[in-house]
Amino acid sequence: MAGDSVKLLGFWASPFTARVHWALKLKVVKYEYFEEDFRNKSTLLLQSNPVYEKVPVLVHNGKPLAESLVILEYIDETWKQNPILPQDPYERALARFWAKFVEDKCVPEIISVFTKRGEEKEKAARDARENLKILESALGEKRFFGGETMGFVDIVAGWIGYWGRISEEVAGVNLIDAATIPLLNAWFEHVLEVPIIRECLPPREKLLEHSKNVYEIATAGST
Amino acid sequence: MAGDSVKLLGFWASPFTARVHWALKLKVVKYEYFEEDFRNKSTLLLQSNPVYEKVPVLVHNGKPLAESLVILEYIDETWKQNPILPQDPYERALARFWAKFVEDKCVPEIISVFTKRGEEKEKAARDARENLKILESALGEKRFFGGETMGFVDIVAGWIGYWGRISEEVAGVNLIDAATIPLLNAWFEHVLEVPIIRECLPPREKLLEHSKNVYEIATAGST
Repeated sequence: MAGDSVKLLGFWASPFTARVHWALKLKVVKYEYFEEDFRNKSTLLLQSNPVYEKVPVLVHNGKPLAESLVILEYIDETWKQNPILPQDPYERALARFWAKFVEDKCVPEIISVFTKRGEEKEKAARDARENLKILESALGEKRFFGGETMGFVDIVAGWIGYWGRISEEVAGVNLIDAATIPLLNAWFEHVLEVPIIRECLPPREKLLEHSKNVYEIATAGST
Repeated sequence: MAGDSVKLLGFWASPFTARVHWALKLKVVKYEYFEEDFRNKSTLLLQSNPVYEKVPVLVHNGKPLAESLVILEYIDETWKQNPILPQDPYERALARFWAKFVEDKCVPEIISVFTKRGEEKEKAARDARENLKILESALGEKRFFGGETMGFVDIVAGWIGYWGRISEEVAGVNLIDAATIPLLNAWFEHVLEVPIIRECLPPREKLLEHSKNVYEIATAGST
């Protein structure tokens, strides 16, 4: 839509921000990106997401939206080209089911690997592995969850193949086991091979350094 | 759609099952209801929702779906009459945002009021009250979140006015404070005044008795 104002407020290391970057790029929507400083949040962020004061936030023609999954659905309904969700209602529902599974069952465990230590960390890693195995069952032999091209679940879960490996390195745990989740492992590669995805990944070394700092701060004082 | 087979697997005391009842009734969709026994789950439930083995599950022409919010969106896309979500993409996104807020910020706290004791229970009740106050800001002076009629957020959050009051009685806490959330309080009444909602509420005394049992079992051994 010519003349549209599309702004994305985000944080370079956030996989939730990455989801919105990916969706906008897959849709070929032009947008301005604004990097947020967590120690000094912008007035636009505080006004746009007063409930959570978190990124990502999409501001479309002055109207703000928060929560990455909500933003993805909005993008899909607003810019119809290159659909993210399937057209069939049942297939759409299954995509939403698995996206919610990622949010409820994979994200918290991968965060816990960063924020816990000892047995709690090990349990989080075990649970993450189990849940990734379940997620794999929804992928099957397909190239992408969306079929031949990236779709909703690919955008929602695709960060795990990049950020998850960094989590493994920083926290010293095994999350993404090629032997037990071979199809998901191959899929991580398929996602990261997509040029517009690869081009907007944060630099690996910078993300690793950042993640080490987050891990140290989050687990300071934990046992 | 004539000739459709629509089955709902649920549990009489579950507010998540109630959401699906309400949506189907607001849409005037005919369906068969199957009550699940948690100590002896049906084969249909286990096959239909192998990931969570929980109700509600909707089975439409043999195709199963789990997760109440996913089911609500499916119902809205499948049976177009009496829309649940607004038509405008931005309004749809706001409805999804607030539905997610209820799931992430109200449901866990109200559950914690049941499963915790002492300071943890009091904190859960405080958080629930604060989050209900935030939810009220989305309602404003409207009769329903959906405007003049019940919509997505009304279906997702409407149970709080019935189940929440029972939680207050059982757990001995204050959740729904008429003085601090007067608009939300009035809205609870608007929801419960809708005949098809009122007609399918579980009987109050039976729900109270059930809730007391759940509370005692859940908090046995807690401090």
